[in-house]
Amino acid sequence: MKLVRHWSGETVRPGLIDGSGQLRDLSGHVTDLAGETLGRAGIERLAALDEESLPVVPGEARLAAPVAGTRNFIAVGLNYRDHAQETGMDVPAEPVLFSKAAGALSGPYDDVIIPPGATQVDWELELAIVVGERVYRADEAEAERAIAGYCICNDVSERHWQMGGTGQWLKGKSAPTFGPLGPWLVTTEEMRDVSGLAMSLTLNGDVMQSSSTKEMIFPPAFLLSYVSRFMVLEPGDVVTTGTPAGVGLAHGRYLRPGDVMRLDIEGLGHQRQVVR
Amino acid sequence: MKLVRHWSGETVRPGLIDGSGQLRDLSGHVTDLAGETLGRAGIERLAALDEESLPVVPGEARLAAPVAGTRNFIAVGLNYRDHAQETGMDVPAEPVLFSKAAGALSGPYDDVIIPPGATQVDWELELAIVVGERVYRADEAEAERAIAGYCICNDVSERHWQMGGTGQWLKGKSAPTFGPLGPWLVTTEEMRDVSGLAMSLTLNGDVMQSSSTKEMIFPPAFLLSYVSRFMVLEPGDVVTTGTPAGVGLAHGRYLRPGDVMRLDIEGLGHQRQVVR
Repeated sequence: MKLVRHWSGETVRPGLIDGSGQLRDLSGHVTDLAGETLGRAGIERLAALDEESLPVVPGEARLAAPVAGTRNFIAVGLNYRDHAQETGMDVPAEPVLFSKAAGALSGPYDDVIIPPGATQVDWELELAIVVGERVYRADEAEAERAIAGYCICNDVSERHWQMGGTGQWLKGKSAPTFGPLGPWLVTTEEMRDVSGLAMSLTLNGDVMQSSSTKEMIFPPAFLLSYVSRFMVLEPGDVVTTGTPAGVGLAHGRYLRPGDVMRLDIEGLGHQRQVVR
Repeated sequence: MKLVRHWSGETVRPGLIDGSGQLRDLSGHVTDLAGETLGRAGIERLAALDEESLPVVPGEARLAAPVAGTRNFIAVGLNYRDHAQETGMDVPAEPVLFSKAAGALSGPYDDVIIPPGATQVDWELELAIVVGERVYRADEAEAERAIAGYCICNDVSERHWQMGGTGQWLKGKSAPTFGPLGPWLVTTEEMRDVSGLAMSLTLNGDVMQSSSTKEMIFPPAFLLSYVSRFMVLEPGDVVTTGTPAGVGLAHGRYLRPGDVMRLDIEGLGHQRQVVR
């Protein structure tokens, strides 16, 4: 299934993209894509619905991040060999974990806003894991089973705030709109193997990042297991798995108002953001 | 007011400590100490209640962390001059921010659990700010008004996980029970000035930390304003403001099963945790 959250006036409703690409509303069945709805049983209940019975949402709905109730928005640094090289850092012996504020999450086509004072806002095309079951100290098999699905994440970063001064990356990763997520949460019964997905990011039509998830150093189930050594993860939490080469930091080119980013990952759709 | 959350069977209920030190239940008035209840208007509504009309909770209730709905649990490193010295790090020119997983929060008298594999679990006595109003890019005056109140926090830390390897502190700060909070949320109408509070932590009766909040480098309203430059903070979020000298790292003494920590901050009550 391709699960989405769509704006309807001032509220966000759950929905899905049906086999013919139409958005259908799920509000009659679940209140939101959060908590138990994201667990194995919750996803199975949604998968058992007759798509044809769900109301079609007319027109072009604005999409929100496809998951709600996120408390932990965890990111992994330097998880592609080529990206570690371009930043001049060593390939890490273990995953580099840091967090983004959950308030950074935004819709896949929402504008990315450069905060006042920011000078080095950068893109990072990533494959994100959405957690469906509570995990703590899970082995890889258990972690794999706890994954609700995958989506694209743009791990937008302010490099000066991230790297400057104090060495803790949180500050440069957490502004509003610094976490476009979606368009869809593709559940694991539709996409189980994410190990060889083509991925690309263009800026104003120019290819900046072009790689494959096969270039990852630590794969998703290992990462989720690893994160769970250190903290409890709950349904709705997001772990984004690192970016390949080609970020702005390496190009010496940061985001400016009017720039347009497009992010694609095979099977997960695409995002598009205008920078403001 | 001294607001608390107390266990009643399997659920946590809101309450307050009345003028004579008795726990009274607030479930008839608010569902929890979260969201709008923590805002200025919400606190004023609670303050206007006739204490005598609230049911007394008999016996010794187990207390939970005095705030719910926390998404951002932000901590400040090296915010006391003497602690920066003992760690061998420079006094920072700006606050060092990092995050703890919200799942680390626990009650003020709950056991602190050493996770499997942890070898350097340490204490950090801290004054914590509870956020009552949404803030983003707030100046100091606005940040000050957004503070719901204060409480004690033990910023429990695993030093090897924190410092080793990747340099990002999140990993060593986030295990379950690594964030005892409370016993009370002391609201700002009861305690506005937190600039000269005596504070101490004992381990098995021996004084390990003894200081005053006047030794802070960056004061609470500044810190909250500073954090809000980088992310949105919402009601229920917690910002803990750093620890004075005397952590285990400096003593070369880490926590062992059976150890008993007691934490006191003037006007904010005390915590006590047994290590397991």
